[in-house]
Amino acid sequence: MLEELKRSVWQANLDLQKHGLVLFTWGNVSGIDREQGLVVIKPSGVEYEKLQPEDMVVLDLRGKQVEGKYRPSSDTPTHLVLYNQFAEIGGIVHTHSTYATVWAQAGRSIPVHGTTHADYFYGGIPCTRPLTFQEIENQYEEKTGEVIVETFQGKPPASVPGVLVNNHGPFAWGKDEQEAVYHAVVLEEIAKMALYTHTLNPGVAAVDQSLLDKHFLRKHGQHAYYGQVACTDEE
Amino acid sequence: MLEELKRSVWQANLDLQKHGLVLFTWGNVSGIDREQGLVVIKPSGVEYEKLQPEDMVVLDLRGKQVEGKYRPSSDTPTHLVLYNQFAEIGGIVHTHSTYATVWAQAGRSIPVHGTTHADYFYGGIPCTRPLTFQEIENQYEEKTGEVIVETFQGKPPASVPGVLVNNHGPFAWGKDEQEAVYHAVVLEEIAKMALYTHTLNPGVAAVDQSLLDKHFLRKHGQHAYYGQVACTDEE
Amino acid sequence: MLEELKRSVWQANLDLQKHGLVLFTWGNVSGIDREQGLVVIKPSGVEYEKLQPEDMVVLDLRGKQVEGKYRPSSDTPTHLVLYNQFAEIGGIVHTHSTYATVWAQAGRSIPVHGTTHADYFYGGIPCTRPLTFQEIENQYEEKTGEVIVETFQGKPPASVPGVLVNNHGPFAWGKDEQEAVYHAVVLEEIAKMALYTHTLNPGVAAVDQSLLDKHFLRKHGQHAYYGQVACTDEE
Amino acid sequence: MLEELKRSVWQANLDLQKHGLVLFTWGNVSGIDREQGLVVIKPSGVEYEKLQPEDMVVLDLRGKQVEGKYRPSSDTPTHLVLYNQFAEIGGIVHTHSTYATVWAQAGRSIPVHGTTHADYFYGGIPCTRPLTFQEIENQYEEKTGEVIVETFQGKPPASVPGVLVNNHGPFAWGKDEQEAVYHAVVLEEIAKMALYTHTLNPGVAAVDQSLLDKHFLRKHGQHAYYGQVACTDEE
Repeated sequence: MLEELKRSVWQANLDLQKHGLVLFTWGNVSGIDREQGLVVIKPSGVEYEKLQPEDMVVLDLRGKQVEGKYRPSSDTPTHLVLYNQFAEIGGIVHTHSTYATVWAQAGRSIPVHGTTHADYFYGGIPCTRPLTFQEIENQYEEKTGEVIVETFQGKPPASVPGVLVNNHGPFAWGKDEQEAVYHAVVLEEIAKMALYTHTLNPGVAAVDQSLLDKHFLRKHGQHAYYGQVACTDEE
Repeated sequence: MLEELKRSVWQANLDLQKHGLVLFTWGNVSGIDREQGLVVIKPSGVEYEKLQPEDMVVLDLRGKQVEGKYRPSSDTPTHLVLYNQFAEIGGIVHTHSTYATVWAQAGRSIPVHGTTHADYFYGGIPCTRPLTFQEIENQYEEKTGEVIVETFQGKPPASVPGVLVNNHGPFAWGKDEQEAVYHAVVLEEIAKMALYTHTLNPGVAAVDQSLLDKHFLRKHGQHAYYGQVACTDEE
Repeated sequence: MLEELKRSVWQANLDLQKHGLVLFTWGNVSGIDREQGLVVIKPSGVEYEKLQPEDMVVLDLRGKQVEGKYRPSSDTPTHLVLYNQFAEIGGIVHTHSTYATVWAQAGRSIPVHGTTHADYFYGGIPCTRPLTFQEIENQYEEKTGEVIVETFQGKPPASVPGVLVNNHGPFAWGKDEQEAVYHAVVLEEIAKMALYTHTLNPGVAAVDQSLLDKHFLRKHGQHAYYGQVACTDEE
Repeated sequence: MLEELKRSVWQANLDLQKHGLVLFTWGNVSGIDREQGLVVIKPSGVEYEKLQPEDMVVLDLRGKQVEGKYRPSSDTPTHLVLYNQFAEIGGIVHTHSTYATVWAQAGRSIPVHGTTHADYFYGGIPCTRPLTFQEIENQYEEKTGEVIVETFQGKPPASVPGVLVNNHGPFAWGKDEQEAVYHAVVLEEIAKMALYTHTLNPGVAAVDQSLLDKHFLRKHGQHAYYGQVACTDEE
């Protein structure tokens, strides 16, 4: 069942480690088959070194496990909320990557300070409000998904494919699990650059809207002219 | 004698290097066989490249060497105080890992700024008071252990499995030597994130108690629901 | 056609990755054959792992593509402006390397804070003014080249072989593509050192002119006495 | 001639690269045979990858080259001043390692902020005064050595085996070239820790003299009790 997707999600989880985004098992990737309405996600707490494609867990969009001998990642309810609410996304990544987590811990959104950011995120990368006591106590993981959706109200998630969960860390997404990993890597690099930009020039302003438009739209808009075909690569 | 424990302690010492926590020989790991009351620890000043399982030193809890051709790590008296006073711990690690040492040198405890911290440490990671002149002059290494115990008065060491010794560096522990290494790696990453969190937002507050409770207890409490079985892994 | 140059430009692009200056495809190198007036540049958005020497694109100095199955890097117009205006340069590199980009994002030139800088750059590394709305909207990539040339008015580009494009990132150049990569690596290291120098001593002054003269001229001037022959190496 | 020393100096130069202290050719190591009064040093500007033991240059203490087809490192006059003035040292290293250079560029000495520092350096690591215009213009490299000697007046160089040359970078030394490299690695790590310690706690004080005494003297004094025999290792 879903052999190709399971292999791709497995590979995407390994890629997190290859890109230096995770320590131990601190990350998870999922992908969705929209036609069948089935989500494939990493099992909870299994070391990357031991992970095999067939260990991936399959669930439906209500969270009912339909295949897999392991329990799914404990963050699964967050993934499911995002798949249910963000119809255009096909893959999701969660990590505690260092610099993105620093911004989440500081409770601050990442402003657009340069074209590296503008090439992939059409605006600042928002930090959610903190969860309330009630949200933490009841259905914490679902509420984490809901506060992300709340943060994006009125903005298409594909235009800003990532978010910082307050006091926690980043989630990123894409059209599939491979692009979600790509965006998670970019988010971490942007977060690192932005931290040092603020260190060097604490009062630095965001870039002009016209520069943001130029860079994002030459890669992602209707008139994109980057790369050989439509792609997420740059330069 | 204790072949299995010696091999495991040897491996744990090599793991310090693999995880980038040590320069040269700047670290040591020990483990204890509680039934026999015997501690196995790295010898002093032997290069990791040359270290063999049979080079590990065996001592009783009073510090009497019962096996091994080498002298034990000069930090052995500190390890012994901790084994004698913290009955539930089975392994201890000491390093001069960069970011944890930075907090120790700054004389500051690491507040809980996010869920990465809360997943493993049920509260801030304390920094001890400086040792007095008398403590430095007489039985310095024992006194280092005693000031750690003093710092934890009234708090179970398993709930906060690490400490910063003022002007010196971190100690971490766990149910065995492998978990102690795991906690030392986590402590270093938390210290790095916390440093940059303070750089970005100098007045940042600690997280709410409810978030700390949620994350620590879902992994370590009676009602833990993380991983496949009880484990130290996440997600 | 230009087989040797294509191979050298291909190698120089791979060297960017080897030196840790690029994530994914975020960088490009070009080289020029001045006799034939032909520029060789990396194609747009092709992964480094898949890149072959024959994938390099050949253009004339007006931007007319004369060979290659791929579209050239989207930054090609910037490269062409520089080759047309800076007659003595033979290779150009563009990256989003972390620390150089931080200075560009902060909108600040890098002052000369030490001999590492003075050995390669005869003065501060300038940051361009931001582009205007009109420049961003029309012929953005050409205008990026023009604002670099404007920034260097009256200064020979070989004496300061690099620049920071405001809110964007670094360009570096050299007598050929290999030297351009060398200068891009040096620029990144200088940017990193300068960031931390400012962190440690925010009011730090630039070095005296005599020290700048000494270091730059002992390597690059008429009376250079560094290395075995004239070279860009040090010590 | 001096085959063993040439091989050891060659190895020490390669070790600089292995430890991440040098970019390209930006570093040099020398060693001395005190009986014969001959110094062996790396040639100027030869890539580490191509360097062979027989490429090392041999000079006497007045700087007369007695063997070797290459010109010696351009920093050779600095090394010679140190060998002539510091009778107890047997090896010297110069690098532009990132964090030590940052302190040199900031013009600040590194205070003793922890036991990592105290284990190897018996006091702060001093930064020299800037050279005067005359010193830069005439015999710059000799003057660099002389300002180091001036900085150490009245202090044995073995007790603080390193220095920061203002606006330039670190020199370190030891009883031989291998120990000099060891000290250069330690100096870089200390510089990194100290930078972040100041970031976290800008007004942090140096450690008490008693802690400095304890750590330095338990490793290096008459009553040392570290390691298996007298050695530079720790723990």
